[in-house]
Order: sequence, then structure tokens, then C-alpha cells
Amino acid sequence: MADPVAPPTPPPEDTEAKGPSKSELKKRAKEAEKAKKAAEKAAKQAELQAQQAAAEDDFAKDFYGKLPLNQSASRPRRQRTQIKDLSESLDGHTVLMRCRIQTSRAQGNKMVFLNLRQRADSVQALMVVDKENISKQMVKWAAGVATESIVLVEGVVKKAPEPIKSATIGDVELHLTKMHLESGIEGRLPFSLEDASRADDEVETAETQLNRVLLETRLNNRVVDLRTQTNQAVFTLQHGIGALFREFLEGNGFTEIHTPKLQGAATESGASVFKVNYFKGSAYLAQSPQLAKQMAIAADFERVYEIGPVFRAEDSNTHRHMTEFVGLDLEMAIEEHYHEVMELLDSLFLSIFRGLRQKYSKEIEVVRKQFPADEFKWREGPEGTLKLTFKEATDLLVKDGVPREVLDDINTENEKRLGRIVKAKYDTDYFIIDKFPMELRPFYTMPDPNDPTLSNSYDFFMRGEEILSGAQRVHDPSLLIEQMKKKGIEPESMKYYVDAFRMGCPPHGGGGIGLERVLMLFLKLNNIRRASMFPRDPKRLEP
Amino acid sequence: MADPVAPPTPPPEDTEAKGPSKSELKKRAKEAEKAKKAAEKAAKQAELQAQQAAAEDDFAKDFYGKLPLNQSASRPRRQRTQIKDLSESLDGHTVLMRCRIQTSRAQGNKMVFLNLRQRADSVQALMVVDKENISKQMVKWAAGVATESIVLVEGVVKKAPEPIKSATIGDVELHLTKMHLESGIEGRLPFSLEDASRADDEVETAETQLNRVLLETRLNNRVVDLRTQTNQAVFTLQHGIGALFREFLEGNGFTEIHTPKLQGAATESGASVFKVNYFKGSAYLAQSPQLAKQMAIAADFERVYEIGPVFRAEDSNTHRHMTEFVGLDLEMAIEEHYHEVMELLDSLFLSIFRGLRQKYSKEIEVVRKQFPADEFKWREGPEGTLKLTFKEATDLLVKDGVPREVLDDINTENEKRLGRIVKAKYDTDYFIIDKFPMELRPFYTMPDPNDPTLSNSYDFFMRGEEILSGAQRVHDPSLLIEQMKKKGIEPESMKYYVDAFRMGCPPHGGGGIGLERVLMLFLKLNNIRRASMFPRDPKRLEP
Repeated sequence: MADPVAPPTPPPEDTEAKGPSKSELKKRAKEAEKAKKAAEKAAKQAELQAQQAAAEDDFAKDFYGKLPLNQSASRPRRQRTQIKDLSESLDGHTVLMRCRIQTSRAQGNKMVFLNLRQRADSVQALMVVDKENISKQMVKWAAGVATESIVLVEGVVKKAPEPIKSATIGDVELHLTKMHLESGIEGRLPFSLEDASRADDEVETAETQLNRVLLETRLNNRVVDLRTQTNQAVFTLQHGIGALFREFLEGNGFTEIHTPKLQGAATESGASVFKVNYFKGSAYLAQSPQLAKQMAIAADFERVYEIGPVFRAEDSNTHRHMTEFVGLDLEMAIEEHYHEVMELLDSLFLSIFRGLRQKYSKEIEVVRKQFPADEFKWREGPEGTLKLTFKEATDLLVKDGVPREVLDDINTENEKRLGRIVKAKYDTDYFIIDKFPMELRPFYTMPDPNDPTLSNSYDFFMRGEEILSGAQRVHDPSLLIEQMKKKGIEPESMKYYVDAFRMGCPPHGGGGIGLERVLMLFLKLNNIRRASMFPRDPKRLEP
Repeated sequence: MADPVAPPTPPPEDTEAKGPSKSELKKRAKEAEKAKKAAEKAAKQAELQAQQAAAEDDFAKDFYGKLPLNQSASRPRRQRTQIKDLSESLDGHTVLMRCRIQTSRAQGNKMVFLNLRQRADSVQALMVVDKENISKQMVKWAAGVATESIVLVEGVVKKAPEPIKSATIGDVELHLTKMHLESGIEGRLPFSLEDASRADDEVETAETQLNRVLLETRLNNRVVDLRTQTNQAVFTLQHGIGALFREFLEGNGFTEIHTPKLQGAATESGASVFKVNYFKGSAYLAQSPQLAKQMAIAADFERVYEIGPVFRAEDSNTHRHMTEFVGLDLEMAIEEHYHEVMELLDSLFLSIFRGLRQKYSKEIEVVRKQFPADEFKWREGPEGTLKLTFKEATDLLVKDGVPREVLDDINTENEKRLGRIVKAKYDTDYFIIDKFPMELRPFYTMPDPNDPTLSNSYDFFMRGEEILSGAQRVHDPSLLIEQMKKKGIEPESMKYYVDAFRMGCPPHGGGGIGLERVLMLFLKLNNIRRASMFPRDPKRLEP
């Protein structure tokens, strides 16, 4: 034991019968205060010493506790194991793992059950007091570590006595021998991952009241929200769509390009653009790589694609609009007919759909638990993808009761209705509409050769929502200028673009896909924000 | 013959000896003018008729001429051939091809030699008058089509009598039987592709004066400039670097992410940011995906990468700065030590270098013709990449004569000098500097565990220029806040970012690579603008 702390000096006894003077009272009060502080200090020190003594008594003290901040002070190169690699073949082996504590449940003061997580994988672990390695203090400490903390654990893999349903690893559990805190939680979690992982249906039909985590709350605390098994799967699927897009195009002779998002002029049609302060002047954020990718065709690249952000300054607060999203764009020279590019885009989508089903079925299954949906359907085989003309599409709507007068364009509501009609009639969630009226399309769209009110343009749909818009483009400068003027665009404002076609350009066409829309609709997430890691809309610029 | 046009009415003869009156003179002048116009009109019509007559006589008239604008009116599905697929095995076969006219040279009035091009491939073609298929008019027309026009040609592949050096296809030539203009040139080409393809050295040492095409002229006419064989190769290599970057990371468990370029606050350190008008407020363009990719680590994604634009509002008009470039970014959780990520980045670069040499040697060779350079060198084998500490690097400079007083940082000039010293001493164009002084690095950099004036950070260099900057990051919120305050950043302005670390975050590190810098330095293009399809700098926002 260390030297005992001297006991606090008692206040001096009154030596006289007469009452103390005011100054004397003041002095005594001061002394009392001093004594109290000393007493507090002594008590604190005593407690600390008691703790130290307990720790010294704790034979397990090296096996748990908080680690110092990792500043890369050492590199022991100890092998670590991933939860997903745990299996019966490791029975009896000691493993070292870093994971989050998903849940923790103490049983008495001698045992704690933990659910440990790495991304979408989890395993059950337990820590039980014994005489050599695990003290009561250690179990108490382990049970007190907050959920979502990151711990470094060591333990022995043991065959589970019965299948474990609460973890993704069902056949083994981990008998912990060491546990150290690597990164803790400051303050309170905004919501539990359990609450964040529930399907809406489950919350609504539950007998006991369950917490529903609103989308707004999730997005404000996106870092925690993204940790759910569902979101880990959603963004693995987002990665998958991008990878499949690329794989198909690389196999078809496309070159990836990167075009500038900062533009000298506010170009293209209707949709508003964001203005940027650019040194002493202004720049504008590209609404799409449209102009640049066409210039790449005029520059002989023949087949190009780009994956990058596109910006839309539209004050639309809907389930399917964001101010910034990821465009999967492509453009290619055509030999004879724009259906060459339309058909290539169709093959691209089929390749993505097939790839998702083949390579990511586990992730699709995971998402479906929280977002129940009919499996996404498309047509395979000799009949191929359903292709309707705009006229045929509107005829279907008229037949279904929509007045023809409102069908100059197909609005969002009628798009969805058309999706339902097509699903019922053709059993597909995916189809193409070709031959849109010219007046609905931008100036760079090639008119139909026989009917100038129509155009060589198409939209692709998934579950009744547009996910791609594309067309043959005008590659002739005179016609381009004529069409710009018709739409009220001053050709001089896009001189570089128009000039590109004066230097010879092959006929070409292409399309732009919204990555998040494809992801949202394939999985039926119902809100585009769920398909974006950190979504941006007119009201959200953070996190 | 059509009806002959009536000869112009002669002016009436003077019938009287006395001179004509003034009004009479006026009348006569008017009549003369009228007669002149009529004569001109008649002459024009006659010429036209003569041409028509000649065309009617022209047995070849269906085999040449301008095609109508391709609006996808038909789809004959005729098989087309690529120049690169031409070989002796096709000797005697008729092929259909679309290509540009690279050069054209008439020989008398019965023959024309053409160099036809598709991207970086070219073939020699000739058209010779004969009695059945090719008329004199046809050869005259073909010889008159402007270079860079796009033509659809049909011809017979013939073994070349001797190797052809002026085209990339050396063993065969094309005997043209048909040629139609698909897209012509309006106005004058800003420069010839021949001039644009010359090395600077060649221009300087030439005996006859050759046109030098300045970078500014090239960038103003980028669509034409990009068509050179050199530029086709440069951007195939750009595509290659991106593909190799991805291939390596996908093989190492990384997830591709897309993070927003629109930010709610002007964040990070020093470098200026672009301000965007965002509805009624303001947004800022991300200088890097730094904050978002770290938040992705706090959200358990473990290993992430992003390829996307980054924006720098720095008024730097140098050979290596742009206001927008492509960032190849990655971030990963580390187990024990930040050298895990530094070593992974090193392996990534070696994989890119090897991949470029293995898969793109043809393109590298092409670029070298215009941009002569020593082959890029790196160290392979057990010794591995040269890694210096900042201290060791500055010692090398001091030993070379640089005063130590100026070496608190290594400026651009000394970077290049260091590159030369290292090349001479270690025979490598690629090396790493580790352990930069803390004061040179941003607030989110982890300090060295033993010396707080140093940091766990590194830069990578190619040919004496920085191409990657990276570090272990601070994952502890208290230390992060402390370092923000030291750099004068208000933690509250980055609340979402700081909060991410309060919710538990593993130790992590990463780096950001400038795609265009890697491309420029690997090929020694000497100016970053050559490595960007449509570069942006403080003075350039177009095309």
C-alpha cells in the first residue's frame, strides 16, 4: 500500500465560552472550506488507489481495457481474421478480430453475450468468468462497452451447440479471451441499428410499439445509418451496377473519358444550371456531359462513356429528384441507324440485370428484407425487350381511360400507370419507348426522316419510371443551328460545340442513365435518397 | 439539249446623228444592266445543264457524291470493315468502310492517292479511272474532297507491291470502287493533322520551315487536335490508367463510392474553393472527396475508392495546375500501422506501371514519337520502391548544395532537383517520401507517435513531381478538434464530419492521385493540359 493520506485537520475547538467574532467566523468558514476540499481530494485519491489496488489484484487486467490512440507506434503484424471466414473448420482455433459491438447482453455478473459485426457479417461471442483469464471486473467492463464501439477481440472459435439465428455466422461462436476498446462512442447513438434495419411493415403490424427511424433522421445521421446490413448491401449493389456498366462497355470497344463539369456558358435546354463564381467571372456546372461527349465523337473517339456527377438546379422536392446525381453516360458513332445505339443500350441493361442477379443475389435478398418488393422482371429470349413507340404507349393509356388530350407528353403519374399496364399485359418491369415527339426533346435531337414532328429518340423505363433518355443527335451544323434557333438558343453562345460539327462528324447517338434511379427502381427503395450515399437536394447539402 | 436560252437583247442602235438625251442614257444604262444580269443567269444555267448532261453521261454517277444527311431512314445492315483488321488474308475481297481522308494527292487526272484513317489506324487507297466503274469525273470529285472529311468507301483489298510506310497498315492497299461523302468540312481546318503531329524537335531542326502548332491553338481547336494519332494514344492511356487503378482495387476488396461535389461549407485547409449559387443560399465545390471518404470509413465500408472531378480555385497558371482535374482517391481502415496503406498505394502504382507497359506498349511508342522521353523507370524486385523520409530527402538536397534554411518545405524547383538526384543515385523515376513535417499537412493528418513535429504522411513522386499525397488520418474527435483549432478552423463549421468520429471509427488512411499528372509524367507530356481532354484553368473554360 502507498503512504496513507494525512486525515484532514479538524476545525479548532472553541477555547472560550463567548461567541466567536465576525472575523473569527470568517476564518473558521474558510478553514472549513479548505478542509472540505482536502477531504474531497483525499477521497478521490483513495478511490483511485482502491481502483489501482483492484486492478493490481485483477489477474485479467492485461486482457481488457481501452487501447491508446493508434498513431502507428508499432506494427506487430499479427494475423487478423474476418467474421465472414469463420467456420467449423476453425473449431478450437484462437482468432484476432476487430469488430463493432452490435448488441451486448450481460447474464448475471459472470457472463456477457455479444453480437460482433464487420460490415454485413456478424457472429455471436461470449465472455465467461474463469479463474485464469477472465475476471469479474473484465466481464463487467466488457458488458459496459457501448454498442457500435469498435473493439479488438481475441477468442477461441467453438462449434455452436445449436444453430445461431441472431448472427450471419450460424455454426460457430467465439469464446472471448481478450477484448480491448479501439474506438468508443461519444454521446448517444441517434438510433439503434436494430431500429434502423426494420421494414416499415414490421413497425406497422408489430404488437409492441417499435421505433420507426424517419428518412430525415437517417440522412442527418447518415454515417450510422449506412452501417445497417441493408445499406451495406445497397451500396455494394451500387458498386455492382457501375462495375457491370463498365464491363459491358469495355467489352464493346468504348473508351472511358472525363469531361469538365465547369462550363463557360449556361447551355443545353430548359433545366436550370448552377452558377459558380469563377475568379473574376462566372462558370456553370454541367447538367450532363452531353456537349463534351458529342465533341469526343467529332474528335474520332467513336465510342465513349463517362461516369460522373451531373448537376440540376431544379427546385424539385420529389422522391426521385436530386440536385446532384451520378450519370452513366455513353455516346457512339452509328453506321446506318440509331437503333444500333438503342439496341446496344438495351443489351447493356440486360447485362446489368443479369449480372446483378448472378453476382449479387445475396445482397438483393438482404435488401428485400427491409424493402419488400416483387422480383424485378424483364423479358429474355427471342421476343426480347418490349419496345413501344410513343404513339403505341399513349394508345395503351387511352385504352386504359386516360383522355388523349392530356397525352401530348406522358407525365409522372401516367408513366407509372403505363408501367402497371405494361406489367399486366407483358409481364415485364423493363421496356423502351421510341419515337418521342420532337417538341419534347432537346435541340440536339435528330428529327425522324419521314415525320418532322417525331424524333429519333427513346426513353427506357424500370417499374414505370424513366431511367434513361437518349437519341440520335444532329451531326450537321446547319440543321443544328436551325434547331437551336427554334428553341430560342443563340448558336454563338455554344460556338465551340457547333464548330465541332463543321470539322466533320459521323452520325451518332447515345444516352444518359441515372445510376441512383436504376438502383432505387431495381430494389424498389421508393426514395432516390436511399440510393445515394450522401444525397443532395434543394434542402440538403450535408452531411 | 434543252431549249437554248434567248440571246440578250442588244441595246437599240442610235437612229439619229445627234447625241442621246440624258434620260435616254439612263434608260440605256438600265437596259444594259438588265441584259448583263440576264446573260449571267443564262451562263449559270448553261453551266448547270452542261454539268447535268455530263453527269448523265457519267456511267459512274452512282458510285460517288454527297450522301443525304443520315437521319436513320434505312438500315441495310451492310457489313463494314475496320482499317485495323485489314491484312493480306483479305486480298481480293471487297470491303465497305467509313473513314476520314487524312491526305489526298491527285496524279494527273486519272488517278488519286488517298490516306484513309480511322482513329490511330490508316491505310493507303487509290482510285484509278477505268472504263466500267470509275469515270474521270469521279476521280476529279474524289480528289477534291477536303481532308478530314468523313467518307464511306468501297474497295478491293490488294496486296501492296511494296511495304507502305505512310500508313499504319503496310502490307495492303485499297483499290476504291465507290466513295461517298458522309460529313464534310465547313470552312478551313485550323491546322493540318500532319503539322499537329510533329515533335517540337523536328520543327526546330527541319531544313525547310515547318508549321508549329501552339498549345493554345490546339486547345482552342481541341476537337481537331484530339484526332492526331498521338492524342488518340494519350487518351487510350488515360483510360488505361483508370482501368488499371480500378482493377487493382477491385482485386483488393475496395468498394467504389460516389460522393457529392456540392458541399454545404467551404471546408478543408488552405486551398481556395469555388462558391456556387444554390437556390437562395450558397454551396461550395469539393476540393477532394476527403471528408466524404473518411465518413464512408466511419460508416464501415472499410476500403473505398472514388474516381471523380475535384475543384481547386487557385489562380495558378503553371504547367501542372488545373482548376478541375480527375482525382483517383482511396481510403482504407488500417489494422496496425499506416504503412499498410502506403504499401498498398505503392503496389497499386507498380501494378499501373506494369499494366501500362504490358497492355499499352503500342500507344506509349506512338506518343514517344511526338514527345521523346526516356522510358519511365521504377525499381522492381526485392529492393522495391525507394522510400525516403522527409529528413533523408532534404539531406540529399543539402548534400547537392541547397541551403538547409530553405528546406522547411520542398518547393517545385527542389522537387525536380530531388528527382534528378534520385534518378542519378538510384536509377528510378518513382519514389516515396514519408514523414512530412506536421505543419505542412492538413488538420486531419495523424501526428507521428514519437515526434509531434512530424506526421504519418507521405507523398509519391514521378519524374520529380508529386502525384499522390496521403496520410494516416485522425480518427479521434478530441485530437481532431484540437488540430482544427490550431489551423484556425471552427469545428462547428464541420459538425457532420467531426460527429462521424464520435460514433466510432477505425484507424484509417488513404491518398489522392491526380490522374492527369500521372499521365503527363509517365509520358513526359510537359504540360498537364495535354493530359486532359478539355482542360480547365483560370483562363480557360472552353471548349
